[in-house]
Amino acid sequence: MKHVASRENPQFKQLHRLAQHAGRRHERAILEGVHLCQAWLACAEAPALAVFDTERLDRPELAALLAAVTDVLPAHQVLTLTPQLLHYLETVETGQGVLFVVDPPSPELPERLAEPMVWLDRVQDPGNVGTILRSCAAVGIRRVVMSAGCAAAWSPKVLRGGQGAHFALTVHEQVDLAACVDRLDVPLAVTTLEDAQDLYATALPRACAWVFGHEGQGVAVDLQRAATLRVRIDHAPAVESLNVGIAAALCLFEQRRQIGAH
Amino acid sequence: MKHVASRENPQFKQLHRLAQHAGRRHERAILEGVHLCQAWLACAEAPALAVFDTERLDRPELAALLAAVTDVLPAHQVLTLTPQLLHYLETVETGQGVLFVVDPPSPELPERLAEPMVWLDRVQDPGNVGTILRSCAAVGIRRVVMSAGCAAAWSPKVLRGGQGAHFALTVHEQVDLAACVDRLDVPLAVTTLEDAQDLYATALPRACAWVFGHEGQGVAVDLQRAATLRVRIDHAPAVESLNVGIAAALCLFEQRRQIGAH
Repeated sequence: MKHVASRENPQFKQLHRLAQHAGRRHERAILEGVHLCQAWLACAEAPALAVFDTERLDRPELAALLAAVTDVLPAHQVLTLTPQLLHYLETVETGQGVLFVVDPPSPELPERLAEPMVWLDRVQDPGNVGTILRSCAAVGIRRVVMSAGCAAAWSPKVLRGGQGAHFALTVHEQVDLAACVDRLDVPLAVTTLEDAQDLYATALPRACAWVFGHEGQGVAVDLQRAATLRVRIDHAPAVESLNVGIAAALCLFEQRRQIGAH
Repeated sequence: MKHVASRENPQFKQLHRLAQHAGRRHERAILEGVHLCQAWLACAEAPALAVFDTERLDRPELAALLAAVTDVLPAHQVLTLTPQLLHYLETVETGQGVLFVVDPPSPELPERLAEPMVWLDRVQDPGNVGTILRSCAAVGIRRVVMSAGCAAAWSPKVLRGGQGAHFALTVHEQVDLAACVDRLDVPLAVTTLEDAQDLYATALPRACAWVFGHEGQGVAVDLQRAATLRVRIDHAPAVESLNVGIAAALCLFEQRRQIGAH
């Protein structure tokens, strides 16, 4: 275990630089807080680096995490920082005294896609992406395929919104969705106003690939055209549209209701 | 119409101060962007102040808004600012060149509460509050009752999340919810894990007061105890819970589905 108390420490400087880009393409991710770090360890992976608040090591959850990483990491990959230094790396006002630096998985997309899935087409808002990942995990979906232009799945805000969902999912990023349509062995489903049936009057299949799109522009036209299952979510005219995270949850839970998972 | 180009202008300074607290208790609110300003005018109210980007007055939406406010406001309540000054007042990166300063309505709570409603108990995150308001408007609910400790309904982030829902709703803030239980002529409904039925196996009434609670702690115990309709939303064990905005949408749209609004 190594203690760092100076902003001029090279390892701290490197961490501080990482914190500005964490989770973006080709960058490592930072998991903040007890829950995410526990979840990472439960997946049986060692983090690249474990960082603790030196003044809070006596808290039971932190002590347990420290014991766990000490078992799997060499001493120089376990850091303690002063609370002030740690705060520079955190994106939340009140951190929990621990963060892991990890290499996000970059799984390979299978040749054929034949299971329940969600595709995200340029969903930009990290809160929306995080919420959708959480809803996917909540209905038992295991695979999420994201286009370029989506908020980075392993960025701090998406991780926070996901609340651990990342660890129940296989997430593919920077995928050319249009090029994947031919790999599908399940229907591609889209929410749209054109040529669409009421979601709640549609018999939904047990498995499909739902595609949800950009907050302003919706799903790209080529993907919309490729969709064989087209549903709309009727709502009162008082609003123009639904938030994409809400629309996704309504589709996924209606499918779960219909297939009798309840 | 009055033009302001200096940060030292007293009226600008006052606006800049307001922008730090807009929408909080006893403060005026700032509506940013074309859509919200149009919606405010459509409710037939004059804003307290209309502020435009002096360099974008030729855009059709802005010209139309300017013409509309010029009809209803004295000249000194219509300001044009340089883009730089306007940017100081905006909470979004790329503003649309217009904002209104308004007095948020503070409607009185009726003696009896007998209609479909949503109650919010210390929902802190402005994104969640905004999303729930938008979902309320989307299912045709007209009244929302919020406790102290909720994000301020007329704050910029809640307004943005609501996407105009505020104008379809009567929103009561800073209400003692426990003290309102006796006013109810509809069931109080809560999502809970204790003594609860599966949402999708429950015959939901046409009208009830749904109460949704604090992101970490849920609905306060006294309100939970007062609830006569108790439902749970089953989900896969991969997540510990659902986001409160998602849970609210699932309840409201399931009720809408059951009562056959679709």
